[in-house]
Amino acid sequence: MPAKPLTDFSRLCIHTITHKPWSLKETVSAFAREGVPGITVWRDAVKDMTHADAGKLIRDNGLEIVSYCRGGFFPAKTESERAAAIADNEKCIDEAAAIGAPLIVLVVGAVPGIPLPEARQQIADGIRAVLPRAKDKGVKLAIEPLHPMYAAERSAVNSMKQANDMCEAINDDHVGIAVDVYHLWWDDMLKTEIERCAALDKLFAFHICDWRSPTEDFLLDRGLMGEGVINIREIRSWVEATGYKGYNEVEIFSNRWWKEDQNKFLDQIKEAYLQYS
Amino acid sequence: MPAKPLTDFSRLCIHTITHKPWSLKETVSAFAREGVPGITVWRDAVKDMTHADAGKLIRDNGLEIVSYCRGGFFPAKTESERAAAIADNEKCIDEAAAIGAPLIVLVVGAVPGIPLPEARQQIADGIRAVLPRAKDKGVKLAIEPLHPMYAAERSAVNSMKQANDMCEAINDDHVGIAVDVYHLWWDDMLKTEIERCAALDKLFAFHICDWRSPTEDFLLDRGLMGEGVINIREIRSWVEATGYKGYNEVEIFSNRWWKEDQNKFLDQIKEAYLQYS
Repeated sequence: MPAKPLTDFSRLCIHTITHKPWSLKETVSAFAREGVPGITVWRDAVKDMTHADAGKLIRDNGLEIVSYCRGGFFPAKTESERAAAIADNEKCIDEAAAIGAPLIVLVVGAVPGIPLPEARQQIADGIRAVLPRAKDKGVKLAIEPLHPMYAAERSAVNSMKQANDMCEAINDDHVGIAVDVYHLWWDDMLKTEIERCAALDKLFAFHICDWRSPTEDFLLDRGLMGEGVINIREIRSWVEATGYKGYNEVEIFSNRWWKEDQNKFLDQIKEAYLQYS
Repeated sequence: MPAKPLTDFSRLCIHTITHKPWSLKETVSAFAREGVPGITVWRDAVKDMTHADAGKLIRDNGLEIVSYCRGGFFPAKTESERAAAIADNEKCIDEAAAIGAPLIVLVVGAVPGIPLPEARQQIADGIRAVLPRAKDKGVKLAIEPLHPMYAAERSAVNSMKQANDMCEAINDDHVGIAVDVYHLWWDDMLKTEIERCAALDKLFAFHICDWRSPTEDFLLDRGLMGEGVINIREIRSWVEATGYKGYNEVEIFSNRWWKEDQNKFLDQIKEAYLQYS
């Protein structure tokens, strides 16, 4: 069955980081005005107000908070740094609960000099350590496998298979996965592992953007949907074929786009969402 | 069994590109003087002389040609471009035979706009098309899986598993794999797939360098062994545990190192080879 285009914005969510030049207030007003129903709030977006007030602002404008972004970065070389990471993740869970987000996205972390298998163990241990707080607050946690180019310093989990394996090992209904096409599009096991993820009931979130060719910056050169090579619509069809009914979250870090007028950029996101997602 | 350090240079090979500022003659003299027994010759290194003369120069200096680098780039949008790629690979095979190289490394190619499964099909078709020439000339072909960050425009084969799958499908004793730690270190299936590769009798070459953190350029910021995060010695131990007796090939593209005095760089390669490989 060929993948079908999206025809409305009912499942569009945009991450605050996508419109980094805007304050949270500006972002919320624009989304409300332009009919973007979902928002994923980055931690640094909540400034000069409490998390409770930020949550109220968002809901008063008719928007739904899809997730809070982000926790993680569990591995560290010393016991005390690992304890600090756990404490910070507990704080992140409290913030998510206060703002009213049902889910935290985890960039799980990696540290140069810590072998990947050891880092993965520390990640699983860290997630287990914060799980009681997450369950107590009713906040779920989504492991986001990152592209292998981030394996040295951002994430020791670099494929859906690894994320599925880790979820199976942790085996708790509050721990699942955020699937991001940017990180995973190249993997020939992606479709199978998306199906496995959904069968485990772990498919918690779906992020979209595009991979530019050439990419000019390791972090801040993501493309708008259609600007790159990713088979976004096909991957979305795999996700939806599993029964996923959640949001399609637009998460673009881009020095290029951040320089543009953000109202125009939002128009282009909406256009690209229908045309290429 | 913990991985053991290397204690001599009997299996050291260096790629000509590693010393890009040097001519082939300068490289060969330096390797002969410094006791580097193996050389992998990049195609662009053979200038102002025939391939036969280049081969004679290398052998007269007591060096062994380990491989010829590189063929590949099979996928293309039109039939005629694909035919041109096949013709160029046949020319590459003729050059390898003329210089006396037993092996060609293939960077198999990818093209923005061609879906990865289709690109992989075109790659397998291209390899099959040039195989008669390779067998006729006694030159083997090594598929080099590249890091997923090159999936858009350099290689649609991005893991050992994929390379093994492709080799199994082609099923010819002249087609195997070049394992490069730079491209594959992050993969939690690497050890298993190296073992599978060797069991298929496909482990044709082993390349080393390091992954810097942070890496500043997508192509030209490879590290000298020890400058980065890769568990090079451990991966070498996996390769050797399969019975691999070939060279350890140092392949470093680095704007940083190319700016340095190349004699000093060669000294540092030898030191790093013993200390970190």
